[in-house]
Amino acid sequence: MKPVMDKGSLEKFLAQDFPQVSGDFSIEDVVDMGCVVRLKVAEKHLRPGGTVSGPSMFALADVSIYLAILAMIGPKALTVTTNCAIDFMRKPVAGADLIAHAKLHKLGRVLAVGDVLIYSDGQDAPVARASLTYSIPPKG
Amino acid sequence: MKPVMDKGSLEKFLAQDFPQVSGDFSIEDVVDMGCVVRLKVAEKHLRPGGTVSGPSMFALADVSIYLAILAMIGPKALTVTTNCAIDFMRKPVAGADLIAHAKLHKLGRVLAVGDVLIYSDGQDAPVARASLTYSIPPKG
Amino acid sequence: MKPVMDKGSLEKFLAQDFPQVSGDFSIEDVVDMGCVVRLKVAEKHLRPGGTVSGPSMFALADVSIYLAILAMIGPKALTVTTNCAIDFMRKPVAGADLIAHAKLHKLGRVLAVGDVLIYSDGQDAPVARASLTYSIPPKG
Amino acid sequence: MKPVMDKGSLEKFLAQDFPQVSGDFSIEDVVDMGCVVRLKVAEKHLRPGGTVSGPSMFALADVSIYLAILAMIGPKALTVTTNCAIDFMRKPVAGADLIAHAKLHKLGRVLAVGDVLIYSDGQDAPVARASLTYSIPPKG
Repeated sequence: MKPVMDKGSLEKFLAQDFPQVSGDFSIEDVVDMGCVVRLKVAEKHLRPGGTVSGPSMFALADVSIYLAILAMIGPKALTVTTNCAIDFMRKPVAGADLIAHAKLHKLGRVLAVGDVLIYSDGQDAPVARASLTYSIPPKG
Repeated sequence: MKPVMDKGSLEKFLAQDFPQVSGDFSIEDVVDMGCVVRLKVAEKHLRPGGTVSGPSMFALADVSIYLAILAMIGPKALTVTTNCAIDFMRKPVAGADLIAHAKLHKLGRVLAVGDVLIYSDGQDAPVARASLTYSIPPKG
Repeated sequence: MKPVMDKGSLEKFLAQDFPQVSGDFSIEDVVDMGCVVRLKVAEKHLRPGGTVSGPSMFALADVSIYLAILAMIGPKALTVTTNCAIDFMRKPVAGADLIAHAKLHKLGRVLAVGDVLIYSDGQDAPVARASLTYSIPPKG
Repeated sequence: MKPVMDKGSLEKFLAQDFPQVSGDFSIEDVVDMGCVVRLKVAEKHLRPGGTVSGPSMFALADVSIYLAILAMIGPKALTVTTNCAIDFMRKPVAGADLIAHAKLHKLGRVLAVGDVLIYSDGQDAPVARASLTYSIPPKG
């Protein structure tokens, strides 16, 4: 199974359907059942002390799995998150972007499940891990 | 065990230490091992279609447990989220604030665990549920 | 919405469809969107030191939500767990049964979501909390 | 950082400290920050229809991360699971053993976090994924 959307068409979709957040993210890579997404860290993503906030990391994990699914099934805006389990493991590096590596383990008719590892750009040890379930709307 | 911070002192703490987000939330109630927090839903919290975004609901769950903990142990800014499991169960009502009911099940020396139910203001069925673990920094 | 199965019919279903484990559990109470289930703790449920093992607590949480769902929708053996998040918060009391209080937050057409609090019999502070998602097979 | 316990010493530890379950598992491989563990599926692990039960998969995920931690820090029986999020994605193949691939993402002073993918022996698509947090007792 190959992706049916590439970096360009995913970024166009994001800009059109999610204009409020599309500027925060850039898609670095799209592969079979996975993708790599960058959070372009800005003032609004930070907590006191300069580290990226939990909700910003959640948002990055969420959008990464969403994009990995859309890359495989095409642009279905109604695909929604039903569940997320996220572990915050290390303090992100101040001033560094975050890089999410998303991987789908299941892409079923109605549910998709994937894992995300989030890194501070340039670091080896992940700052967070997350797993998410998405509900896929029926065809038609 | 009784709360050591009330509504007023929690709101003052939030305004001082989290100025970027404190305007988004108001504390409705503080009880033993729990609190009720309102997300004053604004344009920036919305997804296309007018419902509140997942990251905004995550942020509400996160801040609610944080405040429930601080109410019991006093203002420790270093208390950090280590884990969250969140289920998105219904579409929030467009245009309505979200109300989070947070309850601590454990408040240990190093870890605290709590549950949150999130409702669209005025509705009976919750839109999301979350459980969170916080790591509490050692004294001294 | 009222339960369509009572204690007696749930226990009969369990004995028939899950003979391997039905002897471990007894149903204490069935209410709207919830139930109370006892794990009759025996040697096989214990870890060294005499406390109940994690897998035994997982099994109790799992069966409790399953029974709460069946009580509402009737006996559908194909209903399956898709997700569980569980927090182990305190050591269970040695020699005491475990009591699970299960509550459904959502009972949709295809997904059900509920929370469970597990107590050592006679104690006030829960030993574990869990949330589970079940997938409900289509009718017909 | 290298493992301080190998396959042999882990299996000896398991047999000594967890005699009730050690016969169910065999350790296939130990690597830096990870291991591979087999659940030798027997009658007692099965649900009606012949698939492995959820609690058995939970037990496999749990023991795999436990062994991955012990391999790195040495035999500390007091290390305990504090949290697990598990997704059941596919029906295990009837009659096949389960193989768990465990990987630690964090091995801190007080908390360890890892991911597990569980496969039916010989299959490419995982039947379950889990992430677990363990609390590590202080030295001394």
